[in-house]
Amino acid sequence: MVKYAILGFGTVGGGLAEVMQDQRERLAAAAGDELELGYILRRRDMSDSPWRDKQVRDFSVIENDPDVAVVAEVIGGVGAAYDYSRRAILAGKSVVSSNKELVATHGLELAALAREHGVSYLFEGSVGGGIPLLRPLSRCLAANRIDEVYGILNGTTNYILTAMDEQGQDFAEALKKAQELGYAEADPTADVEGVDACRKTAILADMSFGYNLDPANIPTTGITSVAAVDLELARALGCTVKLLGRAMRTEGGCRAFVQPHLIPLTHTLASVNGVMNACAIRGSAVGEVIMCGPGAGRHPTASAVAADIADAVRHRNDPMIPDLGRPGGVLEPEERLATPWYVRADAQPDQVRGVFPEARPVYGTTMECGFITESMDRPALEARAAALDCRAAWRVLA
Amino acid sequence: MVKYAILGFGTVGGGLAEVMQDQRERLAAAAGDELELGYILRRRDMSDSPWRDKQVRDFSVIENDPDVAVVAEVIGGVGAAYDYSRRAILAGKSVVSSNKELVATHGLELAALAREHGVSYLFEGSVGGGIPLLRPLSRCLAANRIDEVYGILNGTTNYILTAMDEQGQDFAEALKKAQELGYAEADPTADVEGVDACRKTAILADMSFGYNLDPANIPTTGITSVAAVDLELARALGCTVKLLGRAMRTEGGCRAFVQPHLIPLTHTLASVNGVMNACAIRGSAVGEVIMCGPGAGRHPTASAVAADIADAVRHRNDPMIPDLGRPGGVLEPEERLATPWYVRADAQPDQVRGVFPEARPVYGTTMECGFITESMDRPALEARAAALDCRAAWRVLA
Repeated sequence: MVKYAILGFGTVGGGLAEVMQDQRERLAAAAGDELELGYILRRRDMSDSPWRDKQVRDFSVIENDPDVAVVAEVIGGVGAAYDYSRRAILAGKSVVSSNKELVATHGLELAALAREHGVSYLFEGSVGGGIPLLRPLSRCLAANRIDEVYGILNGTTNYILTAMDEQGQDFAEALKKAQELGYAEADPTADVEGVDACRKTAILADMSFGYNLDPANIPTTGITSVAAVDLELARALGCTVKLLGRAMRTEGGCRAFVQPHLIPLTHTLASVNGVMNACAIRGSAVGEVIMCGPGAGRHPTASAVAADIADAVRHRNDPMIPDLGRPGGVLEPEERLATPWYVRADAQPDQVRGVFPEARPVYGTTMECGFITESMDRPALEARAAALDCRAAWRVLA
Repeated sequence: MVKYAILGFGTVGGGLAEVMQDQRERLAAAAGDELELGYILRRRDMSDSPWRDKQVRDFSVIENDPDVAVVAEVIGGVGAAYDYSRRAILAGKSVVSSNKELVATHGLELAALAREHGVSYLFEGSVGGGIPLLRPLSRCLAANRIDEVYGILNGTTNYILTAMDEQGQDFAEALKKAQELGYAEADPTADVEGVDACRKTAILADMSFGYNLDPANIPTTGITSVAAVDLELARALGCTVKLLGRAMRTEGGCRAFVQPHLIPLTHTLASVNGVMNACAIRGSAVGEVIMCGPGAGRHPTASAVAADIADAVRHRNDPMIPDLGRPGGVLEPEERLATPWYVRADAQPDQVRGVFPEARPVYGTTMECGFITESMDRPALEARAAALDCRAAWRVLA
């Protein structure tokens, strides 16, 4: 019998306690041992919770209990979460986490510390919520040089873009609806500005290319400037709009960025709607695989964290620590990547064709036109589009 | 340093030798040890192969070499493959396999033998080729009661159905083209009659519901009766046609079957075309996840087998053996499942609406009509459809 502790008892923490109890037997089989909830670290009152007798307010109780083998950090942020994760590892406990901010910024250091202390450090729930993603990437695809990872990594923005597409809403309207339904937070900045997707892109890139990227260096554009007419024009061009995090291997290092993209309706990612996430992985032997599913939420994220707890226990004598690369990889400029572009401009067909002869402009209700260019890098696009009154320019996933 | 052997040197065996060599370093990191190809078991001449000095013709050489820790069985069939797998396990070697026929029919027995002898028995490549599927199912989703698995599990039939859909070909034409391109075998029976998909469905059901099913008991309908007009009518009804293997938990056991289905174009599976495969897994905590990718082929399948070799080595002291259930589960009748149905009939709109008032019949070029019913089980459908001249009746994925 092995004890574990849950740090933080918000949405994911509560879901985790439920899933660990509901699937007790299955998890024991996967872990090779019974798993018992030892403590829940929470400051706020829990007296009406069925788990109230597990509550502690002082982390040192957990830290000093030698029977606690695994600590699940679901606090979020990089303050207490970072401090407790370090101390847990130093006390010889495995740490599992769904905290993408912490993994993206301090994951490399925590992984090194875990290696040093012979414990596991796992964070399947930090990217793609409940979708099996990081373990397939590092274990099942171990026979592949990973060349590219890209995907829809944030459920809030995907919910908003889907609502804009299906109901013709504009951004502000769709955001308000998402907030009412609890899919967007009161302060939606981290989601709609792409910060959350950027952290997840950094983790995927770290695990794929051998370098540890600082999320602050990854060019990131959110969806606040996407207009209803863009969805309308995209549809007329046989596409939809998705916020993609992308990272690809280059000769000298890698390239990573987060931007809205036009996705052809025939592409699997175009069918990933609402709060669903999806991630494509391109490997040298396998070609391309795509994993889709719920990228967030109480029980989906708990599903990933619970599996990490079971694996940490199963591997007590052979710790699991995904490789987050080494510091200092060359992050090549986003602008040098050549792709087709979607352009929205206040222009007449003749003007457009004068500059982009390959374009087949379509018109939306605002009488702005949208078209798709041939493949070129950003400076080339900007040089040519300067002659037009452009309102939007995003990459098209080719 | 650990030695492994490859049994069989056809498409997958050759691809495996290549991938193991190309990704030597990555695989050593995943395995925690250097991996060295010890032997290739092949009867036919290999004198012009770069691996000719690894060839042996007698399995007992491998069996008796104590340095061989893992045997990759990629022979296929249930003759020599079964015999060598047993003997390898009895000799204390882990066995990895991409042989769905063997796993579906003798997997349970081989897994028990592996448990007894303290070695791993892994078969990630047997379902979904290179798509990470079985390991995510058993490990990453360990915190879930699996309620349903379903998917496009055979690349040949999916290639044929895609060609029929996109190019309006009939079945015979599309099959001939698939054979010319090497996507279908000279004797295509196992693929087009659904036998291959049935074996994979059995493996997925075994791992999901705790019972070990005999593939011979799984109702299986292939795609030979799918006509060009069905694709045309499906399209008019907002759907496409896919051969699905499905298995679902029921109160008393499970239900499993292989049949052509109509899939709404908005469903992720509708975007899975050509030789691609995809599998959806519905779990109690995660909801639904879908994995897509190349379901067969030289390097994709080798990618899965190579990862299994690495994992078998990594887990020498803690063998990995997926749970294939126990014998004797109740397989409930397929016909009792209520779903909407697609019906093609030689009938006039008034006749159709007289029997199925909810139907909105559409007409194809042959002037047969197609329509979708409300949800009902097969006996109910057959009772009502008896009044019409029906040519086809398949389930619609709801």
